[in-house]
Amino acid sequence: MSLPARVRLVEVGPRDGLQNERQPIGIADKVRLVDDLSAAGLGYIEVGSFVSPKWVPQMAGSAEVFAAIRQRPAVTYAALTPNLQGLEAALQAGVREVAVFAAASESFSRRNINCSISESLARFVPVMDAARRHGVRVRGYVSCVLGCPYDGHIEPEQVAAVARELHGMGCHEVSLGDTIGVGTASAARRLFEVVGREVPRERLAGHFHDTYGQALSNIYASLLEGIAVFDSSVAGLGGCPYAKGATGNVASEDVLYLLQGLGIETGIDLRALVDAGQRISTVLGKDNGSRVARALLGG
Amino acid sequence: MSLPARVRLVEVGPRDGLQNERQPIGIADKVRLVDDLSAAGLGYIEVGSFVSPKWVPQMAGSAEVFAAIRQRPAVTYAALTPNLQGLEAALQAGVREVAVFAAASESFSRRNINCSISESLARFVPVMDAARRHGVRVRGYVSCVLGCPYDGHIEPEQVAAVARELHGMGCHEVSLGDTIGVGTASAARRLFEVVGREVPRERLAGHFHDTYGQALSNIYASLLEGIAVFDSSVAGLGGCPYAKGATGNVASEDVLYLLQGLGIETGIDLRALVDAGQRISTVLGKDNGSRVARALLGG
Repeated sequence: MSLPARVRLVEVGPRDGLQNERQPIGIADKVRLVDDLSAAGLGYIEVGSFVSPKWVPQMAGSAEVFAAIRQRPAVTYAALTPNLQGLEAALQAGVREVAVFAAASESFSRRNINCSISESLARFVPVMDAARRHGVRVRGYVSCVLGCPYDGHIEPEQVAAVARELHGMGCHEVSLGDTIGVGTASAARRLFEVVGREVPRERLAGHFHDTYGQALSNIYASLLEGIAVFDSSVAGLGGCPYAKGATGNVASEDVLYLLQGLGIETGIDLRALVDAGQRISTVLGKDNGSRVARALLGG
Repeated sequence: MSLPARVRLVEVGPRDGLQNERQPIGIADKVRLVDDLSAAGLGYIEVGSFVSPKWVPQMAGSAEVFAAIRQRPAVTYAALTPNLQGLEAALQAGVREVAVFAAASESFSRRNINCSISESLARFVPVMDAARRHGVRVRGYVSCVLGCPYDGHIEPEQVAAVARELHGMGCHEVSLGDTIGVGTASAARRLFEVVGREVPRERLAGHFHDTYGQALSNIYASLLEGIAVFDSSVAGLGGCPYAKGATGNVASEDVLYLLQGLGIETGIDLRALVDAGQRISTVLGKDNGSRVARALLGG
């Protein structure tokens, strides 16, 4: 049993989190959230998404958010750019790191982004090319890696094929997402074992949802497989669009507590992170989704 | 990495769970809960406690509950009996398995049961003797095994010393409880490694609380150490007396979901267990504390 000495947390609360909250919040609150997170020591923050506000009203104003945040030199501020139009808007906003999004499940790809997996990958080629020309790094997401709400079981080999494509077209890192949170620890280990044959493990990240309470055991299992980058969402922002009242993204505070307990370095201050999560939960008028935050604040 | 083929869940909801719910419930609801749990396939249920109802009103009527439940031959129905008086009442109620409770922390022992650890162990001697004479098995609990609300850090060697005493005086199984839920996976592994030198691992059980969201990763870590018995509480009954709004006992449904995902046999039906948890949550008028239940019922 050997665990990584250092782990990087990719904070997805301001994008993946807020995008899945029913209620859009204002620019100033988003800016405050991002600044709170960088002050807490997060080194990678997904700030927003350059998509039509007609489809995703929660992500309106991402350019304004990028302009207003206090950018720290050591922090990566990323944006989701699903197409060339999004990338161009991101470039105009001065974004230096973007992300693209594919699925491991055909049905999910068709229902969620309205095209097949291979069509979605083809669509990323001009995005990758333009990003490369501008010296902008691209991170790739693969969703439904341990199960799909429509297709059910997903073979790790399906995930490996999509991850290989994204890595091959230039994604510096590929994040494997258990979008509906159904996976358990052995499946997570097997996933990284199989995908790790196609993409070097140091280029892979784990993105776990806590819908069935399995996120931290999946993260521990992934650590045992040598994975050292994990996506998480402060205060568990995001919820689960597939089950009312259920949890979505794993809470960053809970992941950090685990990592600290394991003696793994992250550079993040737990108390500052808890405060950031509590502040945005108050803005949204909802219960804090982090168990660690509830335990520390409720005592 | 080798996991046990079969795990036994010790359902503590009707005792440890309900005892820590603010509001006492009636005999009929307790009986229904126990019968629901045995029907779902639980093979070991802690039904109640023989203590003064002056101190623990939630546990009043345990004898009546034992008399009214539909006892299945393959199921163990246990009761907590902290002293000889409690044991005698349990024997009169026909109880065939009892439990005693010690702490790994001196401060917790003094504050919680008003005596030192060694005094508490001495007090169990006549209980053990009487139980042996009546052919009744005794299970031992050790609390605060990964941290204490008063003393903070607890060395695994302290836990090992108490566990060895309990095992030595005749407890057939010793359950190690992270009473305040502060432990993380490496500490859980180290605990079983150290205690396993004094008590055979097949005589040890893990009792994890989800206060900091760590219970399932601790259980997965314990499984990797060969531990095959875990305590859990349906619907996460119990809460945490040390932090308002925080979670206590890990939810049985969430543990079962993990075990099923790992391909480990338990003999328990998840859907029947979810229904049992939802019914008692409704009786208590509180949200279901199981993430699995919320995901399955909310979809």
